[in-house]
Parts: sequence; structure tokens; C-alpha cells
Amino acid sequence: MNKAPIVLLSDFGDSHYAGQMRGVILGIAAGAPIADLTHSISPQNVVEAAHILSESVGAFPEGSIFVCVVDPGVGTKRRGIAIEAARRRFVGPDNGVFSLVARGGVTASAVLENPRYFRPGVCATFHGRDVFAPVAAHLWLGVGLEDLGPPAGQIEGLRFPTPVVSEGRIDAHVLYADRFGNLVTDVEAGLVAGGRWAVLVHGKRIRGVSRTYADGVPGKPMALLGSSGRVEIAVRDGSAAERFHVKDPRTVRVRLIKAGKDRVQETS
Amino acid sequence: MNKAPIVLLSDFGDSHYAGQMRGVILGIAAGAPIADLTHSISPQNVVEAAHILSESVGAFPEGSIFVCVVDPGVGTKRRGIAIEAARRRFVGPDNGVFSLVARGGVTASAVLENPRYFRPGVCATFHGRDVFAPVAAHLWLGVGLEDLGPPAGQIEGLRFPTPVVSEGRIDAHVLYADRFGNLVTDVEAGLVAGGRWAVLVHGKRIRGVSRTYADGVPGKPMALLGSSGRVEIAVRDGSAAERFHVKDPRTVRVRLIKAGKDRVQETS
Amino acid sequence: MNKAPIVLLSDFGDSHYAGQMRGVILGIAAGAPIADLTHSISPQNVVEAAHILSESVGAFPEGSIFVCVVDPGVGTKRRGIAIEAARRRFVGPDNGVFSLVARGGVTASAVLENPRYFRPGVCATFHGRDVFAPVAAHLWLGVGLEDLGPPAGQIEGLRFPTPVVSEGRIDAHVLYADRFGNLVTDVEAGLVAGGRWAVLVHGKRIRGVSRTYADGVPGKPMALLGSSGRVEIAVRDGSAAERFHVKDPRTVRVRLIKAGKDRVQETS
Repeated sequence: MNKAPIVLLSDFGDSHYAGQMRGVILGIAAGAPIADLTHSISPQNVVEAAHILSESVGAFPEGSIFVCVVDPGVGTKRRGIAIEAARRRFVGPDNGVFSLVARGGVTASAVLENPRYFRPGVCATFHGRDVFAPVAAHLWLGVGLEDLGPPAGQIEGLRFPTPVVSEGRIDAHVLYADRFGNLVTDVEAGLVAGGRWAVLVHGKRIRGVSRTYADGVPGKPMALLGSSGRVEIAVRDGSAAERFHVKDPRTVRVRLIKAGKDRVQETS
Repeated sequence: MNKAPIVLLSDFGDSHYAGQMRGVILGIAAGAPIADLTHSISPQNVVEAAHILSESVGAFPEGSIFVCVVDPGVGTKRRGIAIEAARRRFVGPDNGVFSLVARGGVTASAVLENPRYFRPGVCATFHGRDVFAPVAAHLWLGVGLEDLGPPAGQIEGLRFPTPVVSEGRIDAHVLYADRFGNLVTDVEAGLVAGGRWAVLVHGKRIRGVSRTYADGVPGKPMALLGSSGRVEIAVRDGSAAERFHVKDPRTVRVRLIKAGKDRVQETS
Repeated sequence: MNKAPIVLLSDFGDSHYAGQMRGVILGIAAGAPIADLTHSISPQNVVEAAHILSESVGAFPEGSIFVCVVDPGVGTKRRGIAIEAARRRFVGPDNGVFSLVARGGVTASAVLENPRYFRPGVCATFHGRDVFAPVAAHLWLGVGLEDLGPPAGQIEGLRFPTPVVSEGRIDAHVLYADRFGNLVTDVEAGLVAGGRWAVLVHGKRIRGVSRTYADGVPGKPMALLGSSGRVEIAVRDGSAAERFHVKDPRTVRVRLIKAGKDRVQETS
């Protein structure tokens, strides 16, 4: 029997919406292992979902089937798609949520047009349950992408912020705040490798890039290379999101300055 | 091996109470697939649990065994029961939580009296772990309802609000607010089929019944037929629960008026 | 095939951190049943995790493998360990989280030193994903503790509060607040068996020790022997944590006085 998991990503929280998707999957693919990646994506935040999916794909085995339902356009003309990328398959809305996992190349794709693999009586507001979950269950059973509909061709992209790099300086963005209030930036490890960097948040200098949370001073902001492979702003034994009164992570200004290039003020 | 899932519904949130139930099930029925429907029922809200269970049953395969633990009367004389309805089985307190799934007919039932299927040393405050979870696990293994105790006879009902329908007008109630702040009413699709309806919330008119969230205006209240099969009040890209300052969903007044019957004021 | 579950305990909430651990486990031990105990431990609260683990172990079958990631010292010199106790195995940081389950005796142990069982490229801030999850998956596949590294010897303890017992009086502590706002104390059932006790919270008397929540008066504080096997402070149909404005459960003063020994004032 197929042992690859069907992996769920959504903004449903622990609600019956996630539960109903599990039921639909098990009704078609009895015995399929279902693994929750997370259901805590901020409501309707496709950019956050794309990042968290992209960061997490490598933790799951090849052959995994991801069902990704962050879908503010449900019921509109946005397409439902299934794609194969990174030796895994992905099912969900064509709204950009797959734009990052697709960067390494899409090896197969389909527009979800064949209602044979849908739940009867598709509800206009819940394609997660009525389209994406059943399609994923059928893929798990052995149905091919080619059975689902015509190839998808170009899939939707997203406008992501990217760090602005100039000599000795990086203007960064915060992608999302995690469970601990850590602010995950768009600065990947490679950008800061081999140098010493001062980190400024809203213009105030915080401790430089550390290796672990424990290198920080309790209650004080710090920066470190996190498990996302990116620079993260953290507060040891605390929450950076609270420390900087973050309502919308996207509004946090983060700048990295190569050490010695600038005088910066220590934050309190 | 039995592939039907044991499905969990509770108000435990993601706590060790839910976790301990999983452990007890796996200790009796090794290999049983466990599927969480939701653990986010509002604490002790049996009415909400009954509705969400009823809406969700059809998403799970026949043969599923539901363990439903919203149980403010735990340890009192309220009975523990198991029933068969809609080709599925349900285990939990006889407090009305099964009153909606039982509407289509109860084909078998039992009062949980045989301690052979309980955990040794039943705790008076946690029958979910010590009675309902082990009984469900034994059902999954093949034990019959008749082994659990005598037939349950009449099971408990609940006083549900029902929409008050008069000519051209429906006075509705809000059953619960979902994860997105959508307010799910007791108006089923059939009641509003084939007509155009104006929708008033607390006396102010909002946009009429749309097909999808995307038909709404960002930030504005709207009504639509949701995945529950009922009229829901939503705010596109927002939360209706926040928009209407809802503390207790049951206090929200919703009225539908057949278009043309009345002049109503647009809300801002 | 091994049917014993791999059980997850963490302070990750429903985040992709928990999800990535599931993926890593399934990538090594395809088909392993994964059971969430809880991911809602208060961030970095090792004492709470140790108590909840200890209370919950008996609910899971012998042979279960627990992965416990409440790990504020990740990336420092604190050891990663695996131990065998109570006929189950436990993998996680050696920071005291296992000090209670180890009380009955550790029958085998290992310091996690063999990188063969780690994920390649261990991240300094996420040993849950890169060390503990893969080690647990390998244990599930049949690897022995002796393959993981040398015996751990003495493992870390924790300074737990313990009730101060004098004649006719117990000064107790609150260990944690649960999902319902119940305050779980360190007073075990044996301490109050066979006597009648008055219970004071912050010096005010509340109702004595009841058997079930339903014995209380709606909205009023009460004490009862909870499913943890300890005295708990509850409010029927309400939250004791809210009722007593609890920010940090550890600061709540609870005293039990043997009935008749003292006059105490009724709380309102």
C-alpha cells in the first residue's frame, strides 16, 4: 500500500473545515496517512502560505501529496490545479501559493477539470473539501495528473518582497511572525555568510546575528539564522512580535549593515 | 484490518486531554486510524457541537466511529451512550449532542454500562478518556453495541433555535461563529431557494445573498450560502464576528426579507 | 509492522514546526502512527511539560516512543538524550523534561551522539526536527538505544514546587492552568484522602473538594480531584484562571485546611 502521506496546509485552524477534509480523504483513500503541516496560516495570507510551504517541503518524503487551501478567491474563476515539483505533488488553488515550490521546475501539471474526481455537489465556498481533498485522495490511489484535466501551463506568481542589497547594506522585510513571536525575514543565509553584520529594527540596533537563542540576553532582541534558513529577529525568553508591537509583520523595517560601515545606536 | 477512522470531536482544544484520548484508543485498537474532526468547540457548548457534528458526518465514510466529548455533566447521572445512525456509530454523553444526527433514525443504541470496555479506575471528571475513547476502540475492534449495555431508548434532545418564518420574512438565529468570523445562521438553503432576499443584521441591511466570498466588497458585510448548507453572514477579507462586535453569537439578530417587501437602510 | 505510536509533545502550537517533525518522521519510518499528545505547552515551560508528560504517559501503550521538544537551550551544550522508563522510550533535550517520568527508574539511556541517526545539516535552533524526530523514527524502525551513543548516566532534574504539609494544613502550588481555566495544583489525591478539607485561594475560602464539576454552583469557584489525580481549582461553567485573574499560575496561593481546624471567610 502507498505509504506516502497526504499533507494538509490551510488557514482553517483546528476547525471542522480541516476535519471535514480529513474525512473526505479517508472516505476515498482508506488507510492513507494524513499529516498536518499546519492549519495556522494567517487567514487568507497566500504569501505566508507560499513561504511556509516552500520551507517545509524538504521535511516530507518524496511522493508526498500536499493539499494547500489558502483560498480567498474560492468560487471565482481562479483555477484549481495539481502540479508535480521537487518529486512531490501539490493540489490547490492557482493563486500563487505554489509559486515558490515551483521555482525549481514543474515536471507535470493539470487544471482540475474532471468532476469525476470531485465530491458530488461541489460547494462554491469550500473547494478544499469538495475538490482539492478528493483529488489528492485519488492521486494517492494512483490516478495520474493527466486524468485530472489539461496541463496547467504557466501558473500564477506572487509579488514577494525581496531584500534590497547595496554595498554593505541589506534592506530586508519580515515575511511572517512564528508561534514564538520570532520575525522571519527574507534574508537568506547566503546573503550574510562570512561577514559580521549589525542588525537594525525600525532604525535601532539590536544584537548581531547569533547562532542560537541561548546566545542572546534574556528579554533583549537579537538576530539569528533560524531553522527557516533565514535571518530571524527574536527575543530570548520572549516575543519579538510583542517587543516591537507588531500588528502586521510586513510593516517592520529591518536593515543589516556590514560591521564597521556605520555608527548605529544601541536599542534599550 | 478495519480501515474506518475513529473520529474525535471535543472542546479540549489542542490539550493533553485530546492527546490522552488518542493514547487510550491506540492502546486498545493498535493501528486504528484516528481523525480529528475538531477540538475547538466552544467550552461546554453542546448546541454548537451538535450542529458541527451534524454538518460534518457526511464528509466521513460509512463505518466511521465518532467520539464526541462536550460533556459539562460528566460524573452526574447523565448517561453515556453509543448509537448507530446514518450508517455510522457515535459514542459520548447523552446530553443532546447526538440529537441532530439521530434525526434520520437511530438503528441501534446502547447505554454504556459494561465496565469491561472502560478503562480501569474511571475518573469522575474525564469520561472522554476513561469511558468513551475505550468504548470506541472496542467497537472498532468488532465489539457490538449489544455488548456495551441495554438499548438506550429515547435519547436526549436539545432546544435549538429555529428560524421564524412568516410571509416574506425570516427571523433567523446565529448558530456559531467559525474560524474566519463568519456567522452561521439556522436558515437552510431550501428556505431561501428561488427568491431574492434582503438581509438585515441588527436591523441594518447588508448585501444580499451571494454565491462566493469574492462576490462581496472588501471590508463590507455580506450574506452567502456557506459550506454548511446555511446562510452565513461574512465580511470579505475580514471577520463578521469582529465587524458586529459579537461576544455571544446567539445574541445576533438576523432577518431576511423577500426583495421588494420592505425598504431597508443600507449599512455603512 | 510496529504499531506503537510515536507521540509528540511540544510548545510549537499548530505550527509548521510540528508539521515538519511529522514529515521527518514519515520520511524515515513510513507508516509509523504519529499521535499528538499536545503542542500547547506554554512556550519554553519545561516544568509544565514535565508534569503533563508524566500525567499522560500511562494513557499511551507500552512501547510508545515520545518525542518531547520544549527546548529553550537548543544549540547550547545541553545534551540530547533518549531514555527508557515505564516500558516506553523518550527522546528530547536533557533539561529536566524527563525528570518526572524517570522517577520510577530509567532502564536504559543514551546521549544522542551518533549523527548517523540525525538529519543531515543539523540546524542549531531546531533539534526537534533535525535530531529528536529522526532519532525517534529510527528507534521505531528497530535501532537500539545503544546505537545512539553512550549511556546518559544521571539526567537533569528540575526544582519543582511541592506542597508544604503541616498539621491539618497544606500549602499548595498551582502547576498549570488547563484549557478550561482549571488550576491544577501539586496536591495529589493521597494527601487529602479520607478527610474533609476547606480550600482557600488567595486567602478566601471556596467550596470544598467535590467529586465532579456538576457538584459546583454555576459561576462559583470550587475544588475537585481532577483527571490529573490532583486537586484542581475550577469554576463551574466558567474559568478559574479568569475568575482569579491569573497571569502566571505559579503565583496563585492555595491552602487546604482540615475541616473544623480554622474559621475561614466565604468568598463571594
